[in-house]
Amino acid sequence: MSTQKAILLLHCPDQTGILAKVTEFVNENKGNILYLDQYVDREESLFYMRLEWDLKQFTIPKDKIEEYFNTLFAKKYKLNFQLYFSEQKPKMALFVSKMSHCLFDILARYAAGEWEVEIPCIISNHQTLEPIAKKFGIPFHYHPITAKTKAEEEKKEIQILKKYNIDFIVLARYMQILSENFISHFPNKVINIHHSFLPAFAGAKPYHAAHKRGVKIIGATSHYVTTELDAGPIIVQDVTKISHKDTVQNLVCKGRDLEKIVLSQAVYKHIQHKVLVYNNRTVVFS
Amino acid sequence: MSTQKAILLLHCPDQTGILAKVTEFVNENKGNILYLDQYVDREESLFYMRLEWDLKQFTIPKDKIEEYFNTLFAKKYKLNFQLYFSEQKPKMALFVSKMSHCLFDILARYAAGEWEVEIPCIISNHQTLEPIAKKFGIPFHYHPITAKTKAEEEKKEIQILKKYNIDFIVLARYMQILSENFISHFPNKVINIHHSFLPAFAGAKPYHAAHKRGVKIIGATSHYVTTELDAGPIIVQDVTKISHKDTVQNLVCKGRDLEKIVLSQAVYKHIQHKVLVYNNRTVVFS
Amino acid sequence: MSTQKAILLLHCPDQTGILAKVTEFVNENKGNILYLDQYVDREESLFYMRLEWDLKQFTIPKDKIEEYFNTLFAKKYKLNFQLYFSEQKPKMALFVSKMSHCLFDILARYAAGEWEVEIPCIISNHQTLEPIAKKFGIPFHYHPITAKTKAEEEKKEIQILKKYNIDFIVLARYMQILSENFISHFPNKVINIHHSFLPAFAGAKPYHAAHKRGVKIIGATSHYVTTELDAGPIIVQDVTKISHKDTVQNLVCKGRDLEKIVLSQAVYKHIQHKVLVYNNRTVVFS
Amino acid sequence: MSTQKAILLLHCPDQTGILAKVTEFVNENKGNILYLDQYVDREESLFYMRLEWDLKQFTIPKDKIEEYFNTLFAKKYKLNFQLYFSEQKPKMALFVSKMSHCLFDILARYAAGEWEVEIPCIISNHQTLEPIAKKFGIPFHYHPITAKTKAEEEKKEIQILKKYNIDFIVLARYMQILSENFISHFPNKVINIHHSFLPAFAGAKPYHAAHKRGVKIIGATSHYVTTELDAGPIIVQDVTKISHKDTVQNLVCKGRDLEKIVLSQAVYKHIQHKVLVYNNRTVVFS
Repeated sequence: MSTQKAILLLHCPDQTGILAKVTEFVNENKGNILYLDQYVDREESLFYMRLEWDLKQFTIPKDKIEEYFNTLFAKKYKLNFQLYFSEQKPKMALFVSKMSHCLFDILARYAAGEWEVEIPCIISNHQTLEPIAKKFGIPFHYHPITAKTKAEEEKKEIQILKKYNIDFIVLARYMQILSENFISHFPNKVINIHHSFLPAFAGAKPYHAAHKRGVKIIGATSHYVTTELDAGPIIVQDVTKISHKDTVQNLVCKGRDLEKIVLSQAVYKHIQHKVLVYNNRTVVFS
Repeated sequence: MSTQKAILLLHCPDQTGILAKVTEFVNENKGNILYLDQYVDREESLFYMRLEWDLKQFTIPKDKIEEYFNTLFAKKYKLNFQLYFSEQKPKMALFVSKMSHCLFDILARYAAGEWEVEIPCIISNHQTLEPIAKKFGIPFHYHPITAKTKAEEEKKEIQILKKYNIDFIVLARYMQILSENFISHFPNKVINIHHSFLPAFAGAKPYHAAHKRGVKIIGATSHYVTTELDAGPIIVQDVTKISHKDTVQNLVCKGRDLEKIVLSQAVYKHIQHKVLVYNNRTVVFS
Repeated sequence: MSTQKAILLLHCPDQTGILAKVTEFVNENKGNILYLDQYVDREESLFYMRLEWDLKQFTIPKDKIEEYFNTLFAKKYKLNFQLYFSEQKPKMALFVSKMSHCLFDILARYAAGEWEVEIPCIISNHQTLEPIAKKFGIPFHYHPITAKTKAEEEKKEIQILKKYNIDFIVLARYMQILSENFISHFPNKVINIHHSFLPAFAGAKPYHAAHKRGVKIIGATSHYVTTELDAGPIIVQDVTKISHKDTVQNLVCKGRDLEKIVLSQAVYKHIQHKVLVYNNRTVVFS
Repeated sequence: MSTQKAILLLHCPDQTGILAKVTEFVNENKGNILYLDQYVDREESLFYMRLEWDLKQFTIPKDKIEEYFNTLFAKKYKLNFQLYFSEQKPKMALFVSKMSHCLFDILARYAAGEWEVEIPCIISNHQTLEPIAKKFGIPFHYHPITAKTKAEEEKKEIQILKKYNIDFIVLARYMQILSENFISHFPNKVINIHHSFLPAFAGAKPYHAAHKRGVKIIGATSHYVTTELDAGPIIVQDVTKISHKDTVQNLVCKGRDLEKIVLSQAVYKHIQHKVLVYNNRTVVFS
């Protein structure tokens, strides 16, 4: 049996000894620290930390840890924290449209057991990728969207997501803009992949725009979805060099490799609880 | 003595056999081809070529080559061409303000004889870098610019540039926007370095903007200056990864390395006559 | 119906006008050139070219083209050429062991129709990945290998490959060294992915070796298999930055993304007939 | 006046609460922590940390800090530490031969005040670069080396280095192998740049070797010099893509940009006391 671990993500105003206090608390209660990464934003005087410890000999019962942190630290230090346990696999929903490359990349990792995650459902506004969902034995929910039906369909989708106890959503080249209402149900819980190096070429048809502008590098950006289009906190970005020889079709082709890797890297960081969002930016722990 | 070479850069509507015709013309007149790179933009039906050949046994006199190309090809094939000779070192003027990293990078290459170029003068709106110009024995012209004096000072600068027979200008972190009038004297002959991955973060303070947006990669872009700010044809771009730990000051520091290398790579391509501008984009030959 | 195209790959001693002669031959016989890339190795005086042309109005019958090239060019110019037709999809066999990431990446592209290729069979020395082959409806041949059975099993594998008329083989993290005899049946037709930046860390356990050496970058290399281990002509390489924080297990994880992309990029170049091997090196056309 | 800071680099066997103990010690004595980065190698059970704090209100006198750390931590926790003060600029000697690109890159940063360092002397086995040293007003010591004179010349060089109180040495494309005796005087204090992606192509003429092997990427590696050639702890590596079109001369040209940036990045990390060497590997703090 693998070790039961607690994972703590926190941020608070920077203050003397906060790092020592939190680590000592874990140490004194016999929690063996397995991972510690911290960072102080000295301009904004903010302290960020991610801590992992072994629960085997930890003297505070698992279901009391949150309470203890609340009482001992949260109020006292204006500390904002999230607590996770390694045994609880997060539940992820996939949203797709017609393109399969990101979907396949994620499902390949899932099938290989690379990620500690569950994928209870795939939701799509097209039926194109249903056969892939079937190959991997994952329920596929078809919700075609028109301007008229959008509000109603999103309502149904939210019901499905609640039913499955979905923790976060991955838009794997889902070609629909989610409504503000939808997003408000999953704050910093919807990961999108945009096929450009944001903030360049936000919006539709970024490869066409990149070709027209004559850039020498294209990129992909994974970010949390906020109500402003393509403007949410960035998690991972990567780029690849191109030349005048590349047609738009070539950019689409080269871009696919970027998109799927950048999205999967962001999802993996999220699954490991290594991303902290603050002020529309992310701290991504090592 | 090194070989005398002719360098031909051309573009024209794509048409059957144009490549064969041009290369045969050189071959038949005993020009030994040393370099050939070509590219057809099949969407726009445009043919681009760069050709280098040895003049030693070439049967057409050097000063007649342009005329022959005009007569035999230019009108017939709507062919637009530029002809250069390797013995003619292009003359480059440097424009600088207060930052020295791009200036030093260029002068180091110049002093080491890496580039076939002459640098007859450095022009600046500040006196800060005059000692560096002196170190390298290059005349330094100080032209402070205010809103009021700008038109007049630019006029003087153009006179200096004409006096030195300047072929092209490099803005090595020159912190002034050139007027439309100035630019019109040097179409596709002014190379700028912008300290962002264009079209992201055009304009002032791109590192501050990048930090605020929380991007995970920063870049630098060298481009020909046009009358629209930071919107000219891109020659070279490069990027480097950053993280949440990087302050604006860090970005400035990391960016300097990008800026100087990207600018020098673009200048080197230009000196070698390997850049063709068409339709606000560049073909950069290998 | 999409266009029927001929694809010509050639190399020969460099000689005056060879480019003009070959392109004129195609032009004169009404072959519309769709792609031309060429390169002269001036140190070795070798000419390399890749040509694609539309066959619709080509006046030489498809089944005569090879003969014409032989007669008109091959002997005369010591020209070595390969001729392909776009309608003939190459047949690719996959060899795998236990790791699925490269297999999935290839099958995802195959299923999405990204590549003009057929995959008639998957061969493995383990049964682990048989369920994946089934998901994609591809025959799976299980050939366990021991030192004793190797010669015999390889013989059977060759029979299978011949039966399917396999054009080339992809070792998608196949953890067996092929015998010289096997390789001799498929010269420059077996593509391997090695999980290091060759020639660094050839052989077994490259991530362990990279970790021990303390490198700051890891890589992956796709190459044609020759009888000397990990020493064949390199097709594609790529790298990713690592730090002291990365354990061997992290390197394995980060390396998987490199491996699959680098292998698929090499396979794609091969499928498009864009790789020419000469002197244990490759010319990879754009 | 800028702040006086102490910088502490340490490593020790990992043990419960070591991070808390050290940071509390600084906090309790009114040292305001400005930087903290730490890392635990869980395989080897080793703890590494870099700490910076403001000395303005620190209650322990500057010249007693080392003693206190020795008494309170070093023996008790088997803690190995180095203590630096921001007011003490390290003294760096440059060793060069004939190539100027790394030298210029370093001197440009030095002249611009980018680095908190002093360069009291340049030592060379050729006179080629003496004019550059003069441009920057730095004493130049010419020590031609032959097999016969090597021991004697190195002795003189060591005397010069001692006279200037040199803290560390940078081999900026110095084309001589230092003797074991020389190296023993400066353990982990000599930074070299090797023009390949080590461990590939160690030794002489790496660009020729890279070209011959047909790699698709070239690299540069900065490392501390040890008695085994090109096998010391790596500080920074970087790479650039190449193609079959690149001649050896091109690789040399492209490599220069890599070499100078990689070397300068390593030197900068060293100057900031951000590199810890252990077990022939480096921890490079952020």
